[in-house]
Amino acid sequence: MAAPSVSNSITARLDVPAGTSAVSQLTAAVEAVGGIVTALDVSASGHDALQIDLTCAASDQEHAGRIVDALRGVEGVEVRKVSDRTFLMHLGGTIEMASKHPLRNRDDLSMIYTPGVARVCQAIAENPEDARRLTIKRNSVAVITDGSAVLGLGNIGAAAALPVMEGKAALFKRFGGIDAWPLVLDTQDTDTIVEIVRAVAPGFAGINLEDISAPRCFEIEARLREVLDVPVFHDDQHGTAIVVLAALENALRVVEKPLETARIVLAGAGAAGTAILRLLLTAGAADVVVADVEGVVHAERAGLHESLRWTAEHTNARDLRGTLKEAVRDADVFIGVSAPDILDGDDVAAMAPDAIVFALANPDPEIDPAIAREHAKVVATGRSDHPNQINNVLAFPGVFRGLLDASASDIDDVLLLAAARAIAGAVADDELNPHYIIPSVFHPEVHHAVATAVREAAEAYPSRTE
Amino acid sequence: MAAPSVSNSITARLDVPAGTSAVSQLTAAVEAVGGIVTALDVSASGHDALQIDLTCAASDQEHAGRIVDALRGVEGVEVRKVSDRTFLMHLGGTIEMASKHPLRNRDDLSMIYTPGVARVCQAIAENPEDARRLTIKRNSVAVITDGSAVLGLGNIGAAAALPVMEGKAALFKRFGGIDAWPLVLDTQDTDTIVEIVRAVAPGFAGINLEDISAPRCFEIEARLREVLDVPVFHDDQHGTAIVVLAALENALRVVEKPLETARIVLAGAGAAGTAILRLLLTAGAADVVVADVEGVVHAERAGLHESLRWTAEHTNARDLRGTLKEAVRDADVFIGVSAPDILDGDDVAAMAPDAIVFALANPDPEIDPAIAREHAKVVATGRSDHPNQINNVLAFPGVFRGLLDASASDIDDVLLLAAARAIAGAVADDELNPHYIIPSVFHPEVHHAVATAVREAAEAYPSRTE
Repeated sequence: MAAPSVSNSITARLDVPAGTSAVSQLTAAVEAVGGIVTALDVSASGHDALQIDLTCAASDQEHAGRIVDALRGVEGVEVRKVSDRTFLMHLGGTIEMASKHPLRNRDDLSMIYTPGVARVCQAIAENPEDARRLTIKRNSVAVITDGSAVLGLGNIGAAAALPVMEGKAALFKRFGGIDAWPLVLDTQDTDTIVEIVRAVAPGFAGINLEDISAPRCFEIEARLREVLDVPVFHDDQHGTAIVVLAALENALRVVEKPLETARIVLAGAGAAGTAILRLLLTAGAADVVVADVEGVVHAERAGLHESLRWTAEHTNARDLRGTLKEAVRDADVFIGVSAPDILDGDDVAAMAPDAIVFALANPDPEIDPAIAREHAKVVATGRSDHPNQINNVLAFPGVFRGLLDASASDIDDVLLLAAARAIAGAVADDELNPHYIIPSVFHPEVHHAVATAVREAAEAYPSRTE
Repeated sequence: MAAPSVSNSITARLDVPAGTSAVSQLTAAVEAVGGIVTALDVSASGHDALQIDLTCAASDQEHAGRIVDALRGVEGVEVRKVSDRTFLMHLGGTIEMASKHPLRNRDDLSMIYTPGVARVCQAIAENPEDARRLTIKRNSVAVITDGSAVLGLGNIGAAAALPVMEGKAALFKRFGGIDAWPLVLDTQDTDTIVEIVRAVAPGFAGINLEDISAPRCFEIEARLREVLDVPVFHDDQHGTAIVVLAALENALRVVEKPLETARIVLAGAGAAGTAILRLLLTAGAADVVVADVEGVVHAERAGLHESLRWTAEHTNARDLRGTLKEAVRDADVFIGVSAPDILDGDDVAAMAPDAIVFALANPDPEIDPAIAREHAKVVATGRSDHPNQINNVLAFPGVFRGLLDASASDIDDVLLLAAARAIAGAVADDELNPHYIIPSVFHPEVHHAVATAVREAAEAYPSRTE
């Protein structure tokens, strides 16, 4: 069973008889079934009874049910109501629209709206560049998905993807000061998605594609970059690639191996894997072997589609064949963005000394990180309950902040590289160790550092900005 | 020259020598050229000089320039900087996205975003109706335009239309508590617009179409109503129709004539005119004559397109022919949503006693309202500088509030009628007079009254709600 987590947290409203030992038994009852009490509030009190709101973390929904049963088992306790804290936070959505001005009277109306607004419209009609000055385009990003590859949940469709996109928008504001709005599309047709995003772009200064399945995501992104004058970023690809590279550069600092000669094995050739590969090569990696479910990718493998053919041409210089497990032998670095439990302790033990293992499959990694740590020097996962979490939230708010501040019209690997190095640089030499290769998303400087690095990189090449 | 207006307001920062009469001359200088001082702030003060921020209303941009020249002409005064207040309010846009939760720590993240959000997504995937409970769909409306008919500015395109859509979104929040987000579309192709709006609809509980030119707006709206399970409202049509009907019902109360027998002449057969006509007929009007640039619409007129043919079939029971001016003779009501200066005083004098004139062309009405008032009993315009402003802001916030509260899946004329009667009802019998037939948009009750009326009408017919 997974460790109890706040994300599976419940609040139970209880009636408890006053003057008994019932209150003191509540925490014990929860802990006896493996729950963790995180808050206990007396929300009403009378002569005979107390009303108590007890919040506790559970491992999953079934576990939460057992906790409630345990509370019911305490003598005299009555369970009035059980709320799921995560669902409570999502009631009615997690974001809203706000007016920047109070609209107190007719004068305010006449400037925000008609007749005054007509002059603002005319100014933009005469000079389209003014849209970045006089409208929300200055600071807005569209968060767009077709719901085809949402988290680890798969193709759940537009409506069910909306809570993720809202959360993303909230993170854009919290860490990047950006006004993002979610658009969840009821279509999974490539041409239609390209046309929709192209058409809505005048209202946004950047496009963040999200949770679109491969290989459609490659084509959609490439075609949009071609037609739009605002940057297009597929977070599942580029956000992941940035944070993986940042973590890898710091992990290599820990083990004192250069990126250029490190033997790197990458498991997964989908959206994230392909983007990681491209950025590793841009950063200078020269010995990368990619494996997917059919084993190592090499030029003579049958049935390579366009993206895998590119991979075969740019990797595997030593022309390896065979399985992932064979490829991992003597490797310095394993990076997995693939499937759960495809490696075991023996595989990691067979890697080179001071091995680095990034097991990023979510929610269940390629290898149990506890087992990986027995043999590897540095281990990272995508999970928040282990050290070294590879978390896209480190990248996208600062990346877009920098792009918006530069009024950038596109994005390229040089900017992604700058973002990765800014994240890596947020871990100082005296902080760096095998359990701290990547800063927290709450690091006070990291988002600003990413934004500055991206803005400077964008501005260094005038052709990249309008 | 139009009267000075706040929407053409400037703030001039001035250096003025202390201890002279310069300060007292500033107001006189502005007024001498026809400006109105609305604020005078001493923003810094020294021994020898004062820094003064002087705000004044002008008639237009050219007039603002003459005011600044007049200030420069005051001895000792130096003009440091002139700001346009309307443009200042629109800098960076007038709306923003806000997170409802503070995202203070990792626990907050784990509920708003991964991993907790996955359970919310799964709940919606299993029960799609939950999107209205667990996402922004509960309270969100898309404000969508193609920029083809923006205010009186015409086809200025997507980017230049954005300030209007932002203002609209701000009004949705202020008067309806609704989270609206603007989508300005870089396409004017009917099929493409329908497909885009259809595809983005999962993230919204209502669609507000805005400033889309006729006749495309009719087809777009009709096709969207067919395919979508959320209400679709073209404000230029239905918002206008609601407020016109509300005003007309109260104007007829003033002159004590029944709607059913009133002779009504409607000038304009575009988007607004057609919608007004439909609602008038739904409300019981039986003697309506429509005129456009080619004169009165009748069944034998050559070249009637689909919409005009419908009009011919449903109006003009007395089979009039000829010009608008001829049609207006002996009419009880003139409603214009057409072009400036098409009627004169003689035309209004030739109407029936106690005539009602709604001259709604913007910014210049069908007849100067001062002239109309010489002959008509009740005069209304679309302008805020005359009594009886017909303003869509009275309708759309409450209409959508009611639709959202009812989880309505569509909208029909019965709901529009309910909204119109709620607006009319906000003017009590003892308040009603020829100069007050319609409440202010700041009326403390009107938006709530509209919302309640629309919600109740929607709920009265279960087939209209999900």
